[in-house]
Amino acid sequence: MDLGTVVGWVLICVLLFGSMAIGVGIGPYIDIPSVMIVFGGTTGCLMVGFKMEQLKKMFTFYGVAIKPTMVDIPGTITKMVNYSTKARRDGILALESDVNNEDNEFLKKGLSMAVDGNEPDAIRSLLEIDMEQTSSRHGGNIKIFEQVGGFSGAMGMIGTLIGLVAMLLNMADPSAIGPAMAVALLTTLYGAMIGNILGGPVANILSIRNDDEMMEKQVILEGIMAIQSGDNPRTLESKLMAYLPPKERKSQFE
Amino acid sequence: MDLGTVVGWVLICVLLFGSMAIGVGIGPYIDIPSVMIVFGGTTGCLMVGFKMEQLKKMFTFYGVAIKPTMVDIPGTITKMVNYSTKARRDGILALESDVNNEDNEFLKKGLSMAVDGNEPDAIRSLLEIDMEQTSSRHGGNIKIFEQVGGFSGAMGMIGTLIGLVAMLLNMADPSAIGPAMAVALLTTLYGAMIGNILGGPVANILSIRNDDEMMEKQVILEGIMAIQSGDNPRTLESKLMAYLPPKERKSQFE
Amino acid sequence: MDLGTVVGWVLICVLLFGSMAIGVGIGPYIDIPSVMIVFGGTTGCLMVGFKMEQLKKMFTFYGVAIKPTMVDIPGTITKMVNYSTKARRDGILALESDVNNEDNEFLKKGLSMAVDGNEPDAIRSLLEIDMEQTSSRHGGNIKIFEQVGGFSGAMGMIGTLIGLVAMLLNMADPSAIGPAMAVALLTTLYGAMIGNILGGPVANILSIRNDDEMMEKQVILEGIMAIQSGDNPRTLESKLMAYLPPKERKSQFE
Amino acid sequence: MDLGTVVGWVLICVLLFGSMAIGVGIGPYIDIPSVMIVFGGTTGCLMVGFKMEQLKKMFTFYGVAIKPTMVDIPGTITKMVNYSTKARRDGILALESDVNNEDNEFLKKGLSMAVDGNEPDAIRSLLEIDMEQTSSRHGGNIKIFEQVGGFSGAMGMIGTLIGLVAMLLNMADPSAIGPAMAVALLTTLYGAMIGNILGGPVANILSIRNDDEMMEKQVILEGIMAIQSGDNPRTLESKLMAYLPPKERKSQFE
Amino acid sequence: MDLGTVVGWVLICVLLFGSMAIGVGIGPYIDIPSVMIVFGGTTGCLMVGFKMEQLKKMFTFYGVAIKPTMVDIPGTITKMVNYSTKARRDGILALESDVNNEDNEFLKKGLSMAVDGNEPDAIRSLLEIDMEQTSSRHGGNIKIFEQVGGFSGAMGMIGTLIGLVAMLLNMADPSAIGPAMAVALLTTLYGAMIGNILGGPVANILSIRNDDEMMEKQVILEGIMAIQSGDNPRTLESKLMAYLPPKERKSQFE
Repeated sequence: MDLGTVVGWVLICVLLFGSMAIGVGIGPYIDIPSVMIVFGGTTGCLMVGFKMEQLKKMFTFYGVAIKPTMVDIPGTITKMVNYSTKARRDGILALESDVNNEDNEFLKKGLSMAVDGNEPDAIRSLLEIDMEQTSSRHGGNIKIFEQVGGFSGAMGMIGTLIGLVAMLLNMADPSAIGPAMAVALLTTLYGAMIGNILGGPVANILSIRNDDEMMEKQVILEGIMAIQSGDNPRTLESKLMAYLPPKERKSQFE
Repeated sequence: MDLGTVVGWVLICVLLFGSMAIGVGIGPYIDIPSVMIVFGGTTGCLMVGFKMEQLKKMFTFYGVAIKPTMVDIPGTITKMVNYSTKARRDGILALESDVNNEDNEFLKKGLSMAVDGNEPDAIRSLLEIDMEQTSSRHGGNIKIFEQVGGFSGAMGMIGTLIGLVAMLLNMADPSAIGPAMAVALLTTLYGAMIGNILGGPVANILSIRNDDEMMEKQVILEGIMAIQSGDNPRTLESKLMAYLPPKERKSQFE
Repeated sequence: MDLGTVVGWVLICVLLFGSMAIGVGIGPYIDIPSVMIVFGGTTGCLMVGFKMEQLKKMFTFYGVAIKPTMVDIPGTITKMVNYSTKARRDGILALESDVNNEDNEFLKKGLSMAVDGNEPDAIRSLLEIDMEQTSSRHGGNIKIFEQVGGFSGAMGMIGTLIGLVAMLLNMADPSAIGPAMAVALLTTLYGAMIGNILGGPVANILSIRNDDEMMEKQVILEGIMAIQSGDNPRTLESKLMAYLPPKERKSQFE
Repeated sequence: MDLGTVVGWVLICVLLFGSMAIGVGIGPYIDIPSVMIVFGGTTGCLMVGFKMEQLKKMFTFYGVAIKPTMVDIPGTITKMVNYSTKARRDGILALESDVNNEDNEFLKKGLSMAVDGNEPDAIRSLLEIDMEQTSSRHGGNIKIFEQVGGFSGAMGMIGTLIGLVAMLLNMADPSAIGPAMAVALLTTLYGAMIGNILGGPVANILSIRNDDEMMEKQVILEGIMAIQSGDNPRTLESKLMAYLPPKERKSQFE
Repeated sequence: MDLGTVVGWVLICVLLFGSMAIGVGIGPYIDIPSVMIVFGGTTGCLMVGFKMEQLKKMFTFYGVAIKPTMVDIPGTITKMVNYSTKARRDGILALESDVNNEDNEFLKKGLSMAVDGNEPDAIRSLLEIDMEQTSSRHGGNIKIFEQVGGFSGAMGMIGTLIGLVAMLLNMADPSAIGPAMAVALLTTLYGAMIGNILGGPVANILSIRNDDEMMEKQVILEGIMAIQSGDNPRTLESKLMAYLPPKERKSQFE
């Protein structure tokens, strides 16, 4: 589990609910109809705006957000350079057993195509389609979280307006105005909280995780192309190192 | 009918009108002049900003939004691979009868061009123009729904300002201030509801439906190109599979 | 005249001024200094931000907005296919008289270059420069209308702040507060009305008209290229048909 | 001096200060600490966000904004066509004296490279780098003026919040509330004025001036390439005319 | 240290805290729970939205923001031209000692590849990957500062809503309303200050520093390519000069 993301959520909740508790207590901040308007309304907007199959996977994406980074670019570079060394020494067919033991689906597919003797252009084209489509699918899912903030903010404002109108029509008892207005404001508060806790930052981290995955796939693609054309493993390593920040560039040949 | 979209709308309406009913009742939230300003004003802005032929089709687009996804990428892949197998075995002319029975206009056009012996570049160029123009037409229509929110929000604000000015000029009777302000706020409420129920989320789902259609057309385009150049059906299937998420990739050759 | 655009403007004005009239009458909504601040201030911002020669043509652009769509893509396709048929039958020089009778400047220029035997690349390059520059000039003009909303909204807010400060300094007479605040709000009202009636929607329709013109020019460009290279008129028609929505594709060869 | 820009500024100032003067007089709108917060704070934000060497030239850019358009595309076209005619008649070396008398640095550089017999690709590459870098430098400077509005608006809001808090803590004397709130609002007023007078519109006109300069350079670049390859001056003129709006296209050969 | 950036921060702080001190004193503006909500909440949002390894380096980036510009394009051009002269006179191997003494890692890597006789395409490809990845890493870091403003503004608004609700529920004692509202507004004030002091402008200057670094790398890349292909040093200088503003172009050959 990615501690940062989880600790971040805990921190926000402790601070916000803590500050409520210290003030007038958490009780007055809970109003079931308001919760239903904002949560339900946001859900409704998402159901109108996205396909059910995307929304069903929404909780999975929260899981992706809190999973620690699985992408290991230096490790992938080492692996690609090792494959390259082996292919150069023993021929590309020597990689057949490695293909079968490979976990990464993308690398397995690309490498097996190379071992099977497909044209470089065909391999590159297939892997690039895979990358583009994966990134575009992820982008579609990330958009859910980007929209959450807009929808919840709008539902919060609609709820507040509904409450304000009701309050303005019942101003006979001045002592009721304050509490009525307090309740009206709750939906705006819920909307802002949902958007900034469950929406925006999640979209952000998912987008970073997608970029990481795409970079790993780019490294694999470059590696397979170099293996197939029989490039020098040192040259390949130099090139792949350029994907890393200068400080992390440690050659295995030194 | 796409249950998700329709259920979403029902959910929003039940929640919002329900919360009004529970409070002061739905009656006070209905003000015909306010409805006319926001609905009429938004319609007016759309009439200035778009061509009549686009607006006339606006209700059709709501229909598209609630239609379930018709695009079946795995099915399209299977079909393209079958055509490819047949063309490879019996020659491309063997596809002539399939062309005549094909429902998908885009596939029919492309395949008949291939069967008629057109140059690959000519086929690709024509199909790509079709895709670009279709996507650009859809984009123009989607923009209507994107603008709805902006226009209705602005009309809501204008209505509220008109009401506020009237209220401020008539503050002799303090007991009338509340109700007058309540009415003034109604246009803002209507504007926010129109924008977030009939505007934004609809633009979003229409954009997703367009992306789906474009992906299907891309698969068809790649398939026709491969059929014409006589590629191996297995190679074609591998390539087209890259358009699917890994879990949905099921080869018909296994 | 494009009825849609004009009816849209009339509709908005009838609704807004009607709702004022029904309430406290139109009179209280008219305040000459406020009108001057918002109209004059917006004009001032436009004068700072654009070249005089652009602003002088601003009223012409309102004319373009209300002119009905002049672009007739199906007609243009028919014409290009006819030229193509004639050029193929009688040679490209047979189009010389058509060039002289042609009204469309863009088509005339391109076709005369083809008849004069210019290189295809030279023709394409010249026509593409013309398209890019025209579209970029239009874009510059459209930006005026996009900015109108921003400038008028800002001027409205500035006017309201000026009025609010004045009101806050003169709160001795409570009965004067309401009317003073009403007047202060008028500039915000004017700003929102200008932006959403004379700004945003106009920018939108002008942008649609530009897209239409560019599509016509693209069809002409493709047509001229095909005529010069002696393509089959049926092939040309197929290709140009791809610019139309499927329902409007009616071949003249059937 | 570009009258439009200057008149625009004068118009805005006359209207805004006039409307203050007519109301409660200009005096109450001037509050030195508020001026310092907004002007100083905006300056501070600019100093954090930009390099000193950019800010030092900021006043020069105001000068560029009010300078009349120096770019004369028709004149530049005439000049390029004349050079082309001369080069075709007497050889490109005949342009040597023209190079020395040329004022435009960009044209001088490009033409002298052509006269010196550099490769066309080298000339194009150098001139394109010059154009890109110039445009990118200008873009960096324009960003200063785009940010001015954001920074001054934020500083205005911060100032108002500081003032509101102070006011809310001192509500013992009700008669002081109005004036205190008036002063608090002044920073918001200043922020909006700075952003919409010294920021946004200036960024806009500078961006237009940059586009004009880039178009002139593009015409020069196309001209030099044509001169070097010995193109027909009439063909060159036709091509360069495509940069002009149709009405301004007047050939010197007719 | 870059005086401009530091002076800018000092200026803002002096002005804002000074204006507080002059008014009701700094004390009333300090509220520890409010500070915690905004600072802590913003930190929480950043922890959810970014990877820990990015956030850990956040303070380093503030260091980059205040470091004076290290990039010296004219000096880099001089160096590249000198290398070019030497390579042309004594052969590219003569640069071997220069490579070893070179501080700039990017130049060192590229030049050593050239000296080692790598293919020009391989060198260009590697250096371009390095540039793209560096710029994309920087962009990811800059996004932290862009998001700070959004997150802190949202947390400020949430804090104010929490405070407002508490205040509205406790309106029995009218004299407590003012101070309670004052405290509620503090979080909005903090949010705006954080965003506009520690967020936006920092993102801006970091982005400028990245552009400068990329321009230097581009000059180095062009230089190495020219050195390897044995171009004339004067031609190289002319080309690299095009990266500078006209006034700074001073040839070392004159």
